[in-house]
Amino acid sequence: MENFEFFNPTRIVFGRGTENKIGEILKKDGVKKVLFVYGKESIKKIGLYERVLKALKDNDIEFIEHSGVKPNPVLSHTKQGIEKAKAEKVNAILAVGGGSVIDEGKTIAVGAKSEKDVWRFFKRQDEIKSALPVYTILTLAATGSEMNENAVITNEETQEKLSISSKYIFPKVSILNPELTFSVSAQYQAYAAVDAIAHTVEYYFSGSYCPMIQNRFIEGLIKTVMDTTESILKEPDNYNARAEFMWAATLALNGLAKLGIRGGSFPNHMIAHALGALYDLPHGACLSIIIPAWMKWYKDKNPAQFKRFAKEIFNKETADDGISELKAWFKKIGAPVSLKAAGVKDFEISKIVDNAYNIAHVWQIGYTKETLTEIIKNAND
Amino acid sequence: MENFEFFNPTRIVFGRGTENKIGEILKKDGVKKVLFVYGKESIKKIGLYERVLKALKDNDIEFIEHSGVKPNPVLSHTKQGIEKAKAEKVNAILAVGGGSVIDEGKTIAVGAKSEKDVWRFFKRQDEIKSALPVYTILTLAATGSEMNENAVITNEETQEKLSISSKYIFPKVSILNPELTFSVSAQYQAYAAVDAIAHTVEYYFSGSYCPMIQNRFIEGLIKTVMDTTESILKEPDNYNARAEFMWAATLALNGLAKLGIRGGSFPNHMIAHALGALYDLPHGACLSIIIPAWMKWYKDKNPAQFKRFAKEIFNKETADDGISELKAWFKKIGAPVSLKAAGVKDFEISKIVDNAYNIAHVWQIGYTKETLTEIIKNAND
Repeated sequence: MENFEFFNPTRIVFGRGTENKIGEILKKDGVKKVLFVYGKESIKKIGLYERVLKALKDNDIEFIEHSGVKPNPVLSHTKQGIEKAKAEKVNAILAVGGGSVIDEGKTIAVGAKSEKDVWRFFKRQDEIKSALPVYTILTLAATGSEMNENAVITNEETQEKLSISSKYIFPKVSILNPELTFSVSAQYQAYAAVDAIAHTVEYYFSGSYCPMIQNRFIEGLIKTVMDTTESILKEPDNYNARAEFMWAATLALNGLAKLGIRGGSFPNHMIAHALGALYDLPHGACLSIIIPAWMKWYKDKNPAQFKRFAKEIFNKETADDGISELKAWFKKIGAPVSLKAAGVKDFEISKIVDNAYNIAHVWQIGYTKETLTEIIKNAND
Repeated sequence: MENFEFFNPTRIVFGRGTENKIGEILKKDGVKKVLFVYGKESIKKIGLYERVLKALKDNDIEFIEHSGVKPNPVLSHTKQGIEKAKAEKVNAILAVGGGSVIDEGKTIAVGAKSEKDVWRFFKRQDEIKSALPVYTILTLAATGSEMNENAVITNEETQEKLSISSKYIFPKVSILNPELTFSVSAQYQAYAAVDAIAHTVEYYFSGSYCPMIQNRFIEGLIKTVMDTTESILKEPDNYNARAEFMWAATLALNGLAKLGIRGGSFPNHMIAHALGALYDLPHGACLSIIIPAWMKWYKDKNPAQFKRFAKEIFNKETADDGISELKAWFKKIGAPVSLKAAGVKDFEISKIVDNAYNIAHVWQIGYTKETLTEIIKNAND
C-alpha cells in the first residue's frame, strides 16, 4: 500500500424524515442566517421546500434564497450567490439538491469569505483559506459531493470546467433521506449510476497497484450500484434500493476508495468534463460515452486488473468481455455509449481533443493529443 | 436500511516512516506538553521510543512519561495517569502502542478534564463532556481504537470490564505505520485477526437485517484479514500484508461496518470480556473461544446470513460448514477454540455465566443464564 492521509469530518444524518432535523441541527451549531441554495421546481414538487422552510422557521433561522442553480453549475450564477451571501451576512450555506447545487453552495461558501475573484481558486492562482460552513440535504445521489472536499464549476465564458479541493468545504452536516430520491427519473438514475461507478473505477484501473482491500471494497460498491439501479428502474419507490444506492454513491467518492492505490488519476472525468463543457451534456452521459472508450484504449496497460474486473463483476474471463458487459449494461439502463447516441450529431473530434487537452488539462496526466484522438474515436463506435 | 448517523473526525496518517511526523503534527496543533502513554519495553526494542522522543524534542514538545499499561488496561494504573496529566497540566495525550495503550490514553484524556471519579463514566453514572485531545501511534492493529470513540478498561477490584463511548475521545490524529507491526508475534497476530473479524461479524450476524452493501463491505474485510494473516504468519516482514491487515482492522471498527443494520449487538464481545476479566486471557483468545460457540447456538436464528457467510467466505454450502471452517481457521492460525486449549483447566461454567450476566450485563441484550450456559458449554468442545 502507498502512504496516505485520510480525514473526513462530515457528519451524515441518514434515513427517513431526516430533512426535518435541519432546523435543530443549524440552531445547535449556532447558525442564525443561511443562504438557501437550490435548483428549480423539483424540491417544491416533492414538498421538500415547504418542509425545509418549516424546519428553519421553527428554529428561528433566517434565510435568503438563491435558486436557479443549473445542472452544470456556472460561474456567473455562483458569483451572484456570493454577492448575496456577503450582502446579507449569512453565517452558513444550506444547499438542498444534487451535486450541482452542493458544488455551487461550496463555492459560494469559499467566495463569501474572500475578497478575491473566486475563479482564481479554480485556476490555482490562490489558495483557499476559509469558507462558511456548508449544510446539505441531498436529493440526487451520484456525485459524492455531500461527503467530500471537492466542487466543480463551469466558467461559461471560457468553456472551462474546473474543480477546487479544500478541507474547508467538507459539508459540516449532510442529510441523506433516500425517500427524497424517489422522484429521480429513470434517466437521471442511469446517469447517477454511471457517475458512482466512474468514481470508483478511475483509480482502480489507472493506478499501477491496487491493494486487495480496495479491490474488494470497490467491487462491492460497483455490484451494489448495479443491483440497486436495476431494482430502482423497476420499482422507483423501493426504499432499500434507493438507500443502498445513496450510501454507495457517497462511499464511492468520500476519499476511502482511493487510499493506498499507487498512482492513479481521473482521466475519464477530465475528458468527460471537456465533453460536458462543449455540448452541455449531463455529466453521467459524458462518462458513459467515455468510460468504455477509455477502457478499450487502456486495457493492455493493466491487463490483470481488467481481467479481475471482468471476473468479479460479470463472471467473465477476459478483459474485453468485461468492457463489453459494462458497455452493454450502460446501454441497458439507458445511458448513451457513443456521442451519436447522446444526440451529438455534429462534432469534430479535434475540437473535443483540443478542449480536453488545453482546457481540461489532460496533458497534466501525460495524455497526448494522439491518445485523446484514439479514445474519442472509440467513443464513436 | 435503518436510519443512522455517522461521524468520524479522526485524521489518519498511514505509511512508512509516518511516526517521525508526530512532533510537527503536535506543534501545528499548538500542543506544548503531552502525557506520553505506553506499555513496556517493546516500543524501545524497535527503536520507536527513541524516534518519538526525537520528534518531540525537535519540535520543542515537552512530555511526561506514563508507562506500564497492561494488555487489559486496568483502572488503578489509568487513575495514576490521570493524576499525572492533571499535576503536570499536559494539553494532550500521546498514546504509543496497541489498543490497550490507546484505550488507557483515551480514559486518561477524559479523567484529566473532570473532577469526577473516572469509573463513573464507565458505569453510566455521569456523561462525558470533554477530554484532552488524543494522538496515537499504533503498534498493534486489532482493536480499531485508533479511529473510534470507544475505550475499554478493567476494574481489577470489581472484576468488571466496561467501556465508554464519546465523540470527545476520537483520536485527533492516528499514525499507522505498518512497519511498526513487523515485530508483532505470530500469536498476537492471530489474536488480532480474530478481534478484527469479531468486530465485523457481531452486527453482521446478530442484526435482523443487513444491507447488501454492508454484507459486501464486511466480507471484503474478513477475506482481507484472513489472506493477510496467512501471509504475515509466513512472512512477518511482508509490508503490504501488514498494511492491508492494519487498514482492515481499522475499518472493522471505525463505525462504517454497522451502518444501516437493523438491531444487532455485541454478544461475543460481552461474553469474551467476562472471560477476560476472570482468567486474564488475551481478548483475541477469548473471542476465538466464544465466537464458534456462539455461532453454533445462534445459527438457526439467522439461517440465511449464516449460509451466505459460508458461501462468500469459504465457498461452502451450509451454515454448519461455515462455522466449522472458521473454527478450523482460528485453530490453524494458533488461536484457541476452547477454554482448555487456552490453558484454563479449572473453570466453573456457572462462574463464567454469572460474570457475563451480572458484570458484563449480557442480560441487557436479552441473554438469559440458560442461554449463556449453553454457549459456554459449546466453548468446551
